[in-house]
Amino acid sequence: MLDKHAADVVQLMAGIGRAARAAARPLAIAPTSAKNAALDAMADAILRNEAAILEANAIDMTNGVEAGLAGSFLDRLKLTPARIRDMAEGIRAIAALEDPVGRVIVAWQRPNGLEIERVRTPLGVIGVIYESRPNVTADAGALCLKAGNAVILRGGSDSANSSAAIHACLVEGLKAAGLPEAAIQLVPVTDRAAVGEMLKGLDGNLDVIVPRGGKSLVGRVQTEARVPVFAHLEGICHLYIDRSAELDMAVTIAVNAKMRRTGICGSAETLLVDRAVAATHLVPVLDALAAAGCEIRGSEEVVAAFPAAKPATEADWRTEYLDAIISAKLVDGVAGAIDHIETYSSHHTEAIVAEDQAAAERFFNEIDSAILLHNASTQFADGGEFGMGAEIGIATGKMHARGPVGVEQLTSFKYRVRGSGQTRP
Amino acid sequence: MLDKHAADVVQLMAGIGRAARAAARPLAIAPTSAKNAALDAMADAILRNEAAILEANAIDMTNGVEAGLAGSFLDRLKLTPARIRDMAEGIRAIAALEDPVGRVIVAWQRPNGLEIERVRTPLGVIGVIYESRPNVTADAGALCLKAGNAVILRGGSDSANSSAAIHACLVEGLKAAGLPEAAIQLVPVTDRAAVGEMLKGLDGNLDVIVPRGGKSLVGRVQTEARVPVFAHLEGICHLYIDRSAELDMAVTIAVNAKMRRTGICGSAETLLVDRAVAATHLVPVLDALAAAGCEIRGSEEVVAAFPAAKPATEADWRTEYLDAIISAKLVDGVAGAIDHIETYSSHHTEAIVAEDQAAAERFFNEIDSAILLHNASTQFADGGEFGMGAEIGIATGKMHARGPVGVEQLTSFKYRVRGSGQTRP
Repeated sequence: MLDKHAADVVQLMAGIGRAARAAARPLAIAPTSAKNAALDAMADAILRNEAAILEANAIDMTNGVEAGLAGSFLDRLKLTPARIRDMAEGIRAIAALEDPVGRVIVAWQRPNGLEIERVRTPLGVIGVIYESRPNVTADAGALCLKAGNAVILRGGSDSANSSAAIHACLVEGLKAAGLPEAAIQLVPVTDRAAVGEMLKGLDGNLDVIVPRGGKSLVGRVQTEARVPVFAHLEGICHLYIDRSAELDMAVTIAVNAKMRRTGICGSAETLLVDRAVAATHLVPVLDALAAAGCEIRGSEEVVAAFPAAKPATEADWRTEYLDAIISAKLVDGVAGAIDHIETYSSHHTEAIVAEDQAAAERFFNEIDSAILLHNASTQFADGGEFGMGAEIGIATGKMHARGPVGVEQLTSFKYRVRGSGQTRP
Repeated sequence: MLDKHAADVVQLMAGIGRAARAAARPLAIAPTSAKNAALDAMADAILRNEAAILEANAIDMTNGVEAGLAGSFLDRLKLTPARIRDMAEGIRAIAALEDPVGRVIVAWQRPNGLEIERVRTPLGVIGVIYESRPNVTADAGALCLKAGNAVILRGGSDSANSSAAIHACLVEGLKAAGLPEAAIQLVPVTDRAAVGEMLKGLDGNLDVIVPRGGKSLVGRVQTEARVPVFAHLEGICHLYIDRSAELDMAVTIAVNAKMRRTGICGSAETLLVDRAVAATHLVPVLDALAAAGCEIRGSEEVVAAFPAAKPATEADWRTEYLDAIISAKLVDGVAGAIDHIETYSSHHTEAIVAEDQAAAERFFNEIDSAILLHNASTQFADGGEFGMGAEIGIATGKMHARGPVGVEQLTSFKYRVRGSGQTRP
């Protein structure tokens, strides 16, 4: 790791931006075979360099322990032979995805004979700013490459050695396939100023930023970035149990939506139960959640019906616990659920359990969140579960990408118009 | 027109933003029939209030003449009964467009039975900042409404009275259909500070800005906006005549691409001719352009072959003339054309004339502009010509909207997932 003064960092980052932009054009027209050859060579290099990666990771782990990092943080940082194999397999899975570049999205003909098609193109240069999960280096680098984009990776300082060792394997893969090395660059300094330069857009050489990490990182990027951002700040996801819900299904989905994994963005944070079925549905659902180890924070009515619940405060409706805690409230039917969700949701993912199709359609139409589910768990909010392959994250913005951001969402498009000499009258 | 101090403008604009956001939700779920009823009522109101609109316009024209505005400016400002009829018909044409909101873009099923669909939703609140073409008030207001968006219109101060009279008709239409009046707001002050507030995003209540006007307006918006912008700064469009081009077609397309209308963004500004056919194609094409009244600014080789041409300077390759002037240069085949275009283009629209399909495909693949045409005039770069109906402009950015920005490009999307009790393993 270099240690640089601010002016040096500005210069360094500007150079990285220029190199990325220069790499973007050959990448944009690189054939699928070259991109896949690079990805396969990257996976090979990662497996071949397992020892070196583990050694680099051991340095990061030692530093992390000395720095007193939390256990959960160290767990995310730690690499094992199995995790390295997963990383290589993840890259091969990205190679196996259909190449989005050049794909015709829609085509039509005009009365004057012009044939128009909208085809996918790469976006250009993507910046990925992430915390200390070293595997993001491989995942994000591979995904951006598949979509024909150059990428600038800025990993957390705590995983700097691990990321550098992985990055070296990616560069080996690029070289093996004859693609520009600057297609995947890792920022070689840990100064926070480097992030600041990326947020300013590197003199127009950065087209979009994807932050991967906790709320403070994403919040900083969303607030300060002068370029578009694909991200979600938080996933305050709701599960609504309608009066028409089958009780068994409601119980099963509630437990899965909250408890399958509590630390992911698609985990349910608030349970809304239709007041019309409070007598029959509320307690069984809460019983099942409590039995699974979940703490309940309820509205007054909920606490009255389920005394084991703690009283919820206004802040609870706005909190992404990312933990075995759920807030719970009675609402007046689907209209009440929609009102609550439109007030408190982070517009990530919401689910309704209902047999009444009209209630489900109303929920689908009137709630403006990236993902809405009917009779399914909120934990399906994931690009892999959507069949989109690997994802670089989930976006709650409305511009360009929304929901899972996979290889297709990392593209733009252009129009191709074929004529036979047409002029405009 | 009010005259306000800066703090008042900040407050005023914040209130406009809040009102727009509040209107956006009912608008987003308004049925197609209500939106179309509002549009029809707007068209009726415009026709019914012809006298009032002409009277307001007469005030703007008198002020404009007194202020010494240029003739072309006054021509754009002037309304006539025919122009008012066109405005009303334009609104009816927007009513006739298919409603994009709720349209399923793509649908698929997962092995676990989940049915996933991506459906169009409104974007939210759109800001339109335009110069003194009063008809933009009607066009932009109607187009945003059709896509279910609230819109904040900020027209030029020189057309303030005309825009206000037209806006009153739009509000009449909204009221007649029971839609919120704040769905289409016209900023009632002419302070430049109002624009500044819009560029800052009105506390998150503005989702995208569309500037409509000259380069200085668009440049300011692109540089200062903290929200996404749909725009093109300029249209430095190229026409390339390949060695395989049919001479007659090349001549016809060149004259049309440059001279049909010289003041539109899709007008060709640079002619590139394959050196291999310099002897046969260059002079006839330039002769035809000159005969049509076009000034030629050529590279040394072009001037040698066509002495009536003036010598081009480096600046000519970077200039959008918007006038009866074209720059001209010989290039080494399609590769040379691509190099020149990728260096100098504004990535708006480029055309190739060629019988060689491989040359055309290479041109299509390797040039990263919003619109590419083969054997057709660059002047087809227009949403109407694309069959997309009315457009609010043409965008050269790569995020979200690119090329003509019509009603579909003014939408976002969400995912609807239908299950039968699925939980994630």
